[in-house]
Amino acid sequence: MLVLSSPSGAGKTTLSRKLLEVDPGVELSVSVTTRKQRPGEIDGRDYHFIDAARFDAMVKGGELLEWAQVFGHRYGTPRAPVEAALASGHDVLFDIDWQGTQQLRGAFGTDLVRIFVLPPSMQELERRLRSRGTDSEEVIDSRMRRAASEIGHWGEYDYVLINEDMDECLQEVRTIIEAERLRRDRRPYLFDFVRRLVERPNY
Amino acid sequence: MLVLSSPSGAGKTTLSRKLLEVDPGVELSVSVTTRKQRPGEIDGRDYHFIDAARFDAMVKGGELLEWAQVFGHRYGTPRAPVEAALASGHDVLFDIDWQGTQQLRGAFGTDLVRIFVLPPSMQELERRLRSRGTDSEEVIDSRMRRAASEIGHWGEYDYVLINEDMDECLQEVRTIIEAERLRRDRRPYLFDFVRRLVERPNY
Repeated sequence: MLVLSSPSGAGKTTLSRKLLEVDPGVELSVSVTTRKQRPGEIDGRDYHFIDAARFDAMVKGGELLEWAQVFGHRYGTPRAPVEAALASGHDVLFDIDWQGTQQLRGAFGTDLVRIFVLPPSMQELERRLRSRGTDSEEVIDSRMRRAASEIGHWGEYDYVLINEDMDECLQEVRTIIEAERLRRDRRPYLFDFVRRLVERPNY
Repeated sequence: MLVLSSPSGAGKTTLSRKLLEVDPGVELSVSVTTRKQRPGEIDGRDYHFIDAARFDAMVKGGELLEWAQVFGHRYGTPRAPVEAALASGHDVLFDIDWQGTQQLRGAFGTDLVRIFVLPPSMQELERRLRSRGTDSEEVIDSRMRRAASEIGHWGEYDYVLINEDMDECLQEVRTIIEAERLRRDRRPYLFDFVRRLVERPNY
């Protein structure tokens, strides 16, 4: 399980999409949210857009792995698709913030690989937020403040990348995934391999 | 710091040499040993061949990071070259066994990345040992027994690779090194980067 966190505008969503395109072993966990769909967003791809009553029911029914409130809206990670993906041998990518990361870490420990993506500068972050053209001056201001606060949590991640060049950053994420797949504790079938290896009668 | 361990014949030495060729950021720690130089070995490249008195003096003088006795001969890792390499920003590769790895782990904790290389099969391991043409039947027998015992320590390593194809295995080692360099705790300069990032007066 892989978490990709970053302040809004640092390129996390683009990175996630590109990663899913190039690595068929990775599935995206699509969050549920009570906030309104924005122009360009697709229900079921970017988020599952649900109402407050449905969100409450999911929380009560234990259907969410983690959830948090941000800017008056709630966001959560549905449990069932994650369990299905893991059961089928896929890695799961979470595009969530530090609050969700802390909760998943609590639930999954070191099974969770945490990557934080930093913007090259705050000016560049602001430029990227403005270039979306969807947010008011007030919203951009609050996003920038929230970005600074989100960045304050970089120390809670296993890997920290600076997204200066998107392709380079994508390659770094892929390298991390490939290396993590080689970790002993992620290759349980090695137990059998080693057992057969040393079972030779002569040694 | 990177440890590459494997039973003799699993390809560790070839892997190490190839890695040094392709990655200029890596320096090899050359061990000292009291055993005799074998045909084809070069003093200062494969080992520093020293006598028992010199070895004793190094142990007493605290000049070895770790040492162990194997088949009646002693092997050790000189401290000074490792410290010099690390000070100059290089990664250090250790081509040592599980005993040395345990000692280095005790001294350096998670600064040490441990990779274990398994042979594809014991038959293949025996074939590789015989193809050297340097060892007697008795020595090959004892090497095979030692291999089985060495393999028993695979569970003490961070990464475990199967050396079926040398180029693939080398690529896996390189991927691990690249990913480990992206870990937050190996990028201390990020502290300054993040501090400057969020120091903007407006956020």
